[in-house]
Amino acid sequence: MNDKTSTPVTVIGLGLMGQALAGALLKAGRPTTVWNRTTSKADQLVADGAHLAPTVGEAIKAGSAAILCVTDYEAVHELLGASDVELEGTTLINLTSGDSTQARETARWARERGARYLDGAIMAIPATIGTPDGIILTSGPKPDFEAHEATLAELGVATYLGEDAGLASLYDVAGLAMMWSVLNAWLQGTAMLRTAGVDAATYAPFAQQIAVGVADWLPGYAEQIDRGSFPAEVATLETEARAIGHLVEEAEAVGVNAELPKLIKAMADRAIAAGHGGEQYPVLIEEFARPGS
Amino acid sequence: MNDKTSTPVTVIGLGLMGQALAGALLKAGRPTTVWNRTTSKADQLVADGAHLAPTVGEAIKAGSAAILCVTDYEAVHELLGASDVELEGTTLINLTSGDSTQARETARWARERGARYLDGAIMAIPATIGTPDGIILTSGPKPDFEAHEATLAELGVATYLGEDAGLASLYDVAGLAMMWSVLNAWLQGTAMLRTAGVDAATYAPFAQQIAVGVADWLPGYAEQIDRGSFPAEVATLETEARAIGHLVEEAEAVGVNAELPKLIKAMADRAIAAGHGGEQYPVLIEEFARPGS
Ligand SMILES: NC(=O)c1ccc[n+]([C@@H]2O[C@H](COP(=O)([O-])OP(=O)(O)OC[C@H]3O[C@@H](n4cnc5c(N)ncnc54)[C@H](OP(=O)(O)O)[C@@H]3O)[C@@H](O)[C@H]2O)c1
Ligand SMILES: NC(=O)c1ccc[n+]([C@@H]2O[C@H](COP(=O)([O-])OP(=O)(O)OC[C@H]3O[C@@H](n4cnc5c(N)ncnc54)[C@H](OP(=O)(O)O)[C@@H]3O)[C@@H](O)[C@H]2O)c1
Repeated sequence: MNDKTSTPVTVIGLGLMGQALAGALLKAGRPTTVWNRTTSKADQLVADGAHLAPTVGEAIKAGSAAILCVTDYEAVHELLGASDVELEGTTLINLTSGDSTQARETARWARERGARYLDGAIMAIPATIGTPDGIILTSGPKPDFEAHEATLAELGVATYLGEDAGLASLYDVAGLAMMWSVLNAWLQGTAMLRTAGVDAATYAPFAQQIAVGVADWLPGYAEQIDRGSFPAEVATLETEARAIGHLVEEAEAVGVNAELPKLIKAMADRAIAAGHGGEQYPVLIEEFARPGS
Repeated sequence: MNDKTSTPVTVIGLGLMGQALAGALLKAGRPTTVWNRTTSKADQLVADGAHLAPTVGEAIKAGSAAILCVTDYEAVHELLGASDVELEGTTLINLTSGDSTQARETARWARERGARYLDGAIMAIPATIGTPDGIILTSGPKPDFEAHEATLAELGVATYLGEDAGLASLYDVAGLAMMWSVLNAWLQGTAMLRTAGVDAATYAPFAQQIAVGVADWLPGYAEQIDRGSFPAEVATLETEARAIGHLVEEAEAVGVNAELPKLIKAMADRAIAAGHGGEQYPVLIEEFARPGS
C-alpha cells in the first residue's frame, strides 16, 4: 500500500518549517491541503496551487495523511482537540519538536481516538527540506511509515527508527548533542590556538580531520559497549586521564575557558575512581548512563 | 639539505613509544643509534640492527638528529643535563608530550647551547608508528623541519605547523579535546538511546554520520570567526538554546547523566546574556576565549 504522486497530503502549521514542507510537496506535484492559525501564511502556497482548508477538521479529512508541524506538543493538542476534528481512520505524522515522553503520550492519545500515528523529528533547516540534506527521523508502527514513505521522501531523507514513538525525539537530541559537542570542541581548540596567533581557518581543517577520524571508531567501540567488556587495546583510561590533565593545564595556562576540559576530566576521573583505570575509554558509558552530581 | 636513507638517526628513550620509533627507522633501513636508561629495553632493537650507545652524549653524537621520547620534559632536562652531553651543533627533535610553555622554554634552552631544536607531539599509538595513521606534529624553525622531513616521514605523517615551538603541543591538546568530545557526545547519545532499548551498535553509525556532517561545516564557520561577524544564516543562538533545553530535559527525564548537556546550555546561555542571541553558534568563541566561572 505505497502512496503515489497523486496521493493527497495535508500540512497543518505553516511557520517557517511548515511552509517549507508544503512547498516541497507542491513542487513534487502532490495535491496539497494546508491549514494555519494565521491564514495569511498560506497565501504564497495557495498561489502555488495549495488548497486552503477552512478548519483543522476539514484539513485532516482532505489528505491521506496530515503532517503536523507547529511550535510544540501543546499546540498539537490544542489543534487536535478542536470540536470538528474527527481522528477515527486518519493518519497523523507529527513532525513537531518535542521529547520522547510527549511523543509516546501523543501516540497513545491519538490511537485511543482511532488514528494512526507516526512521530517524527526534522534534523534540517527549512532551506534543505526537499533535498538530500533534509533528514526526517520517524518512529511508530512500521506499516504506517511504509504507507507514507514516498510522501516523506519528498521532504528529504526519511529514516525509520523503530516502533517506539519516542525514538525520533531521542535520536534527534542525541544527534544534536553530537553537533554541539563537535562545535564546542572546535571552539575550544580555536580559542587555544588563537593565543599563539593561529587563525580559525588555519586550525579548522585539522579539527575536521580529527573529528572524522574519531567518528570512524564509533562502530567498533559500540561493540565493546554492547559486550560490556572494555579491554585496553589502544590505551588505558589512566593514560588518557594524564593527557586530559594536560588539556586542562594548557587551557588554564593560555588563559581560555577550561570548563569543557574540566568536564572531560571529571567524567574520566570518576570512572577511574570506580575502578576502571585499566580499561578503555568507552567504559565511561557507565558514568554517562547514571544521573551525575 | 634533505636527509636520505643513509643518514644516521638517534632515538633516546625506549619506552613503548620510543621502541616503536626506533623500530620504524630500522625497518626503513636507517643506521639507528639508541639509548635508554634501562639498557635491557634496547635488546630487541640491537638484535634488529640498532647500535646501543653507552651514554646520552655518545648517542647524540652518533646521529644527524636525536629524537627524544621519554615520559616528560623533566626527564628530557635530566638527560640533556648529563655532564658528557655536548649540544653545540646538534639537532634535537623532542617528541615527548608536554605543554606549549615547556616546549618554548626547552627550545630556548637548547638554542642557547647551540643546538637546533624542533618540538613535536605524537598523535598516534605505538602500533601505528610508521603507518599513515601515525600523525607526527612538529613546530620550530622550518629549515630544521625540512632538513629532517624524510626521517620524520618514516615515523608516519609528519606535519609542520609553524615556527613557534609551542604549536605542536597546542594542536595536540586541541585535537585530543575534539577526540574526547566526539566520544563523550556519542556516549551521551548511546546512554539515552539505551533507555529505549536501542543498542550501541545500532546508534553508532547515526552518531558517526552527524559528526562527519558537522565537521564539514568547520572551515566555513572559521571564516565567521576570522571576520568577527556571525550573521544567523542557518539558525540563531536563541533557537539553538531552546533545542539545547530539550536535550537537558530529555537527559534528565530518561535518567542519564546531564552534565554535558548542561555545560552546552550554560555556554549558550552566557553568550545570549552577553547579547548574542540573534547571532549564529560560532559567536560562542567569545565565551570559549575567556576564563570561565
Ligand atoms: N525552523 C527550523 O529550522 C526547524 C528545524 C527543525 C525543527 N523545527 C521544528 O518545527 C516546528 C515548527 O517550527 P517553525 O520554524 O515552523 O516555527 P515558527 O515559524 O515559529 O511557526 C510556528 C507554527 O506553529 C503554529 N502554532 C503555534 N502555536 C499554535 C497554536 N496554539 N495553535 C495553532 N497553531 C499554533 C504557528 O501558527 P501561527 O502562524 O498562527 O502563529 C506557526 O504555524 C517546531 O517544533 C520546530 O522546533 C524547526
Ligand atoms: N604510548 C603511547 O601510546 C603514546 C602516544 C602518544 C604520545 N606518547 C608520549 O611518548 C612519550 C613516551 O611514552 P611511552 O609510552 O614510551 O612511555 P613509557 O613506556 O612509560 O616509557 C617512558 C620512557 O621514558 C624514560 N624515562 C622516564 N624518566 C626518565 C629519566 N628521568 N631519565 C631517563 N629516562 C627516563 C623511560 O626510561 P626507563 O625505561 O629507564 O624507565 C622510558 O624509556 C610520553 O611523553 C608519552 O606521552 C605516548
